[in-house]
Amino acid sequence: MRTINVGIIGFGTVGGGTAEVLLAQVERITKRTGARIVLKSVLVRSKRQLPEDFKDVQVVVDPDLFFADPELDIIVELIGGIEPAKTYILQAIKAKKHVVTANKALLSECGMEIFEAAAKNGVEVGFEGSVAGGIPLIKTFKEGLATNKIKSILGILNGTGNYILSEMSEKGLPFKEVLQTAQELGYAEADPTYDVEGIDTAHKLAILMTIAYGMKIDPSQISTEGITDIEPIDINLAKEFGYRIKLLAISRNHGEHVEARVHPTLVPESHLLAAVNGPFNAVHIEGDMVGDILLYGPGAGKLATGSAVAADIVDITRNIIHGAENRVSSLSYLPEYIEPRAITPLAELECPFYFRFTTVDHPGVLATIAGILGRHGISIEAVIQKGYLDNGHVPIVIRTHTACEADVAKALAEIEALDITTAKTVKLRIFV
Amino acid sequence: MRTINVGIIGFGTVGGGTAEVLLAQVERITKRTGARIVLKSVLVRSKRQLPEDFKDVQVVVDPDLFFADPELDIIVELIGGIEPAKTYILQAIKAKKHVVTANKALLSECGMEIFEAAAKNGVEVGFEGSVAGGIPLIKTFKEGLATNKIKSILGILNGTGNYILSEMSEKGLPFKEVLQTAQELGYAEADPTYDVEGIDTAHKLAILMTIAYGMKIDPSQISTEGITDIEPIDINLAKEFGYRIKLLAISRNHGEHVEARVHPTLVPESHLLAAVNGPFNAVHIEGDMVGDILLYGPGAGKLATGSAVAADIVDITRNIIHGAENRVSSLSYLPEYIEPRAITPLAELECPFYFRFTTVDHPGVLATIAGILGRHGISIEAVIQKGYLDNGHVPIVIRTHTACEADVAKALAEIEALDITTAKTVKLRIFV
Repeated sequence: MRTINVGIIGFGTVGGGTAEVLLAQVERITKRTGARIVLKSVLVRSKRQLPEDFKDVQVVVDPDLFFADPELDIIVELIGGIEPAKTYILQAIKAKKHVVTANKALLSECGMEIFEAAAKNGVEVGFEGSVAGGIPLIKTFKEGLATNKIKSILGILNGTGNYILSEMSEKGLPFKEVLQTAQELGYAEADPTYDVEGIDTAHKLAILMTIAYGMKIDPSQISTEGITDIEPIDINLAKEFGYRIKLLAISRNHGEHVEARVHPTLVPESHLLAAVNGPFNAVHIEGDMVGDILLYGPGAGKLATGSAVAADIVDITRNIIHGAENRVSSLSYLPEYIEPRAITPLAELECPFYFRFTTVDHPGVLATIAGILGRHGISIEAVIQKGYLDNGHVPIVIRTHTACEADVAKALAEIEALDITTAKTVKLRIFV
Repeated sequence: MRTINVGIIGFGTVGGGTAEVLLAQVERITKRTGARIVLKSVLVRSKRQLPEDFKDVQVVVDPDLFFADPELDIIVELIGGIEPAKTYILQAIKAKKHVVTANKALLSECGMEIFEAAAKNGVEVGFEGSVAGGIPLIKTFKEGLATNKIKSILGILNGTGNYILSEMSEKGLPFKEVLQTAQELGYAEADPTYDVEGIDTAHKLAILMTIAYGMKIDPSQISTEGITDIEPIDINLAKEFGYRIKLLAISRNHGEHVEARVHPTLVPESHLLAAVNGPFNAVHIEGDMVGDILLYGPGAGKLATGSAVAADIVDITRNIIHGAENRVSSLSYLPEYIEPRAITPLAELECPFYFRFTTVDHPGVLATIAGILGRHGISIEAVIQKGYLDNGHVPIVIRTHTACEADVAKALAEIEALDITTAKTVKLRIFV
């Protein structure tokens, strides 16, 4: 029986989880592939003892020694971050090892360099675990929907952010309190910036757009807003309007140019994405042939992400056995067809908006705000003004008809320049 | 550039849809595979003219001539039914052609014979289009979740049935009226038996169980109940209890034995499957590593199913180009590991139940029913008795705690043997 030797860089949560999956499923994998997958070695920073189950696995601390092992077929990078992950992956590729990684930050920032090196060296780079944890999403884009022009991608791609919004919605608690609990439970990191500011979501959207459209994109091109300004009052008023607030990655394919943005969004209750709660992820995909597809599952977690990483290992194993390396191009489209494409300027986009103004308690404030919105062509669909905040200020919530981003920006700047508002205006987009 | 020649048997809805997808996506497929896929010929019953877009496609009426074409790489069977589809597929396999089919009835009834013939002749059989239309479900089981023991499958697998239940729920209309409208709109066939009696769902569940568990199963082993007895009153009372009624395919993997059944089920409102409405399909999969996954999408339709069929064609094309035919075994598990497994006897299953008795309007009827249930160890959680039917009879609705199927069967037989019930008792299972 053919043996495929795997080396893992990093033995943290996902590294350990992947090792567990490979061990637990070793017989099943043989029944499915005819091969035996063996975890041969791990590269870690300092010598340590692995759990009893992995006592036969070599623990290596010298990267050169690790990469020089001629028996390793596949090297799995699971340390995250840009360096030394990037150097390690390039070193593995140079040593003609296939690579599997779940490193979304690295792939979204330096993916092209890595994929080009892999193509030059005839090895594969699997990255199913980099987006949406255990959901077989990358394979769906690259293979299952191969005969579709992808018209749109809507995703809840960050489990931490979705957990926080779900808890705020269910328990009526403020952002900071829920974040603290999430940190205590291990759902959020000590520095939650990437998760709550939408940066992690933007990284993942960049990866999905690359394989969906066959394009180069830098995550800095993605307009990104987080969820730190959202308060329970917004969640409750959104509910009154029939919506749930979700941090969405949104991309629409207009052919010549494509939308790419991440922001909290009011999603209609009737949409399946509105029902995705807790640390789960979901992606809604519209294909020109297939229509609407949705994939839902755990966005993170030791064994869930381990399952996705192991699926890549099985995939590459099947290719090695059949001499079919790079049977599917890493980015689905062949390298010569990957092109840069224009990103639709945010200012040109149109959608209905939700505004929450915090104002002084003077007569005529609503009239002033409504007047300014009107002069910028922004038509009001509903207004809610009730009660006072603890500090005596007044929240005025306005839901608009479809309006243009550029007009909204101008109107809000004009309103905030007056001395009638006393806090930053909350501006949320409504999904239609 | 390598050309892959495709022949399609049948040019009806799905056959025409597949042809449309291949034509619309020809450039995209080349960008993804480096090959050109050409629809070379179609086999139809009688000479006919194809639409203008397909004027270069050969129209063949002689099967022997069609299968003898040495240039055909892949033959796609899209006529449905057992014969002549089976003979044609076996003929194609004998001629060493790869086969793609969306024929769930044939695969669930005679799949093993077909897959064995394919293995013997070294060709592939793709069947992504056979279950859940456009959803890339088969690939998810065979590849994306390859490193998981599948613990359970819960599926809404019949678009017609789900459309009818959704319309009944939304509009409060009786089954027969909704069915008639569905037939007029083309959502249901003139003979709807397969769809509304759960037979089509059982066929699809058999296919999914085969690839999920690596087992042989005959659809006749699947306990199957349809939706024809469900009335608006059941849908409304289920709603009062916090449930939606869905026709579910259910399988749970107990290792030595596996559950396999199709029946209308009360699904809690909070479950994503409860939100799947209209002609859509969805499958909830629990893997031992990944946890809970759900896939949602169009269960049927010309281009949606065409997208799935075309994905199989692309998959096989990628294998042909790389000399990697049968890179993934047709049933995911290698043929030598496919085994028969015991089906859990229905009588042993346990779940909460919903009963609607139609009774005469006499004192003591509820006491009699409750007494019989109690003697069989069936504990009542809630009772609703209100009003009269048009005919003066009384509906009594009971929701039970978890009860055993065997006890329920005995209790209902005893109750129905008395002259207090005036119509067949509606018995629905509640999903927990």
